[in-house]
Amino acid sequence: MRKLNEYNKSRELFARASKVIPSGIYGHQGPAEGCYVPVEAFPLFSERAEGSYFWDVDGNRFIDYMCAYGPNILGYNDPDVDRAAAEQRKKGDCITSPSYKMIEFAELLVDTVATADWAFFAKNGNDVTTMAVMVSRAYTHRKKVVFFKGYYHGISPWTQKIDYAGVIEEDVCNNIYTEWNDFEKLEQIFADNKGQIAAVIAQPYMHGNFKDNELPAKDFWAKVRKLCTDNDTVLIVDDVRAGFRLDLKGSDHYFGFEADLICFCKALANGYNVSALCGKQFLKNSVSDLSYTGSYWLSAVPFAAGIACITKMRELDLPKILNEKGEKLKNGLLDAAKKNGFDLRITGAPSLFYLRLADDNSLITHQRWIAECVKRGVFFTSHHNHFINYALSDGDIAETVAVADEAFKAIKGL
Amino acid sequence: MRKLNEYNKSRELFARASKVIPSGIYGHQGPAEGCYVPVEAFPLFSERAEGSYFWDVDGNRFIDYMCAYGPNILGYNDPDVDRAAAEQRKKGDCITSPSYKMIEFAELLVDTVATADWAFFAKNGNDVTTMAVMVSRAYTHRKKVVFFKGYYHGISPWTQKIDYAGVIEEDVCNNIYTEWNDFEKLEQIFADNKGQIAAVIAQPYMHGNFKDNELPAKDFWAKVRKLCTDNDTVLIVDDVRAGFRLDLKGSDHYFGFEADLICFCKALANGYNVSALCGKQFLKNSVSDLSYTGSYWLSAVPFAAGIACITKMRELDLPKILNEKGEKLKNGLLDAAKKNGFDLRITGAPSLFYLRLADDNSLITHQRWIAECVKRGVFFTSHHNHFINYALSDGDIAETVAVADEAFKAIKGL
Repeated sequence: MRKLNEYNKSRELFARASKVIPSGIYGHQGPAEGCYVPVEAFPLFSERAEGSYFWDVDGNRFIDYMCAYGPNILGYNDPDVDRAAAEQRKKGDCITSPSYKMIEFAELLVDTVATADWAFFAKNGNDVTTMAVMVSRAYTHRKKVVFFKGYYHGISPWTQKIDYAGVIEEDVCNNIYTEWNDFEKLEQIFADNKGQIAAVIAQPYMHGNFKDNELPAKDFWAKVRKLCTDNDTVLIVDDVRAGFRLDLKGSDHYFGFEADLICFCKALANGYNVSALCGKQFLKNSVSDLSYTGSYWLSAVPFAAGIACITKMRELDLPKILNEKGEKLKNGLLDAAKKNGFDLRITGAPSLFYLRLADDNSLITHQRWIAECVKRGVFFTSHHNHFINYALSDGDIAETVAVADEAFKAIKGL
Repeated sequence: MRKLNEYNKSRELFARASKVIPSGIYGHQGPAEGCYVPVEAFPLFSERAEGSYFWDVDGNRFIDYMCAYGPNILGYNDPDVDRAAAEQRKKGDCITSPSYKMIEFAELLVDTVATADWAFFAKNGNDVTTMAVMVSRAYTHRKKVVFFKGYYHGISPWTQKIDYAGVIEEDVCNNIYTEWNDFEKLEQIFADNKGQIAAVIAQPYMHGNFKDNELPAKDFWAKVRKLCTDNDTVLIVDDVRAGFRLDLKGSDHYFGFEADLICFCKALANGYNVSALCGKQFLKNSVSDLSYTGSYWLSAVPFAAGIACITKMRELDLPKILNEKGEKLKNGLLDAAKKNGFDLRITGAPSLFYLRLADDNSLITHQRWIAECVKRGVFFTSHHNHFINYALSDGDIAETVAVADEAFKAIKGL
């Protein structure tokens, strides 16, 4: 039996953090947001990371299936990406005139991503989702935007919910919410709002939190694509989370259609801070018309890292490898569940798998199992999809399955 | 006479960039935005930077008074900041659980910035100005926000103008615009909107583009502070541009008052990509109530860089040094103008000086002079404030004044 992790130093640091940082740690990575439940099973601060692992401040090592919520795709501290970034760092990062690395990065994205006739760089996924909506409004001279319930497109007021703190009615009054995979309802919305819909914004499949992830229904995307084209509505794919884990050409390409605008962040440069909006030629002038920039958006180090990351992912044909690793893990976890008499559901793409124990209608059994895995050094979260990275080895997968088995045994009969 | 710069490679690269990037280069740093006029005088892409200089792709060296539009405060590639960042890089940057460096950085800001009872980190200045408005709305349960004309608070739709591309009426319909330094008008606005104003957002002084910069009138800030307090309105200082160049305790402290929320970015980590919102204890819970995070917001390398940057700025008492350098440059430029019979106006803080030749009412004479400086290796821009950095030497200042003198002679009699 494995020794269970203790988190004394994490807890001490969290108390210190809470004095000077609202919530102590904010966002998903903090204990307040619902994905780290039960909170006492989780570490809160890290000391270092390498490959498929990170070590917390108490010295516990984790096989990490969250990958910093996506950015870690090649393994932490990938030597090729870090070398390219360090070389650029010597020359300079954030300079009055931008480095020509920006051009090379844009050319590489245009060459890689199916729908990309151009690329524009920013810092956050949120910068490029917000920009995509603004470009759509500028191009169409319309206001309304259709969202699929369960979406996450960042944190700007326009993409939050009316009952969230700091959001006002005007922020969201042009949003229309509909159901994922329900084409008839979407068609009705277009009929009811003829000539008023600037954009449909969607993730490539429904990978929302707190529920089983849902791939697109047969022909759903083809029909949505045609509906948008027929109505001069801009089709935006938010590939911030799934990007480069399904298909290097874009997750739209993976599902057999072409978006008008596609948003990337996270895995774009293996954690170096950069995001990108790519899109079709007909929208390029509308992008130029926007007033849209940021202090660090021309930083050259993340450009150099992004070039190295995309180049390596292409050489490896990485999404295929990540999905094979995900498939292997999935089979191991399902076997372990079955052997112990549990009903484990694994949904979404294997490289972005979502876990749920369906043995009872409460979340409690599931959360207990996740907690027992985390306390044994396998970093899952309870209600968020996971991420596979290239450094994850067969040994890591075998150890994960062994830990999962032990965790099932630990919760049996509780 | 100095040889004039040529920019053949910059132009070739710009043509290449234009194919794959909307506008070729976006924002202030591109030729489309109005600060690089006449465009042919300016380089467009850089090769490297060091200290107070950068070199463009044609091998021209510039004494750089734009400092990447602010981030470069200690000199490009400052060895102390880069060493701290490189050490953290070896441990990890963007990790599933954040590094404890986040706590140390927050504690240092709370210890440094007068109004900071807490700190929250993001990536863009825009992230924290938007957050400041959301926090104000969450706390007050009000919608309206007062802006001073000539402001720049980032690029989210709420802070843009109704006639800008991609902006809709709902984005800006709760904004009230008034005149900088006009307290009576502000008082009237508060009377007309009793109990409805969530926040006043302002730069510490008016450092807008295309006009002489304007310091606060006597008692203006004291009266604004009292008006906000009396009306339970949140006072937000946007110190993204001026921060740490007037006062390490915050530009509000420099002008003798305390903001409720203060926004930092740019100079916070000498160019490493991080921004911060700091504020008063009474707003801390409202920050926690927001749903607000980003993929890279817990990156540890910029935290380590920020700690090293603030520590060094404190050891040096940096704002004093930057303003002395700015004062020396100002005197030299004014002398050179006078000697050549030109009416040069230098406004704003010396560390953030704004230049204007007031000899005619058109912008042409001014732009010609700026162009002649840039072509001789002194990087000014025509209609944006400038930035002083610590690496700028007395020799650099002397060379700048010599170039300015030559540039005055070049435009005389044109």
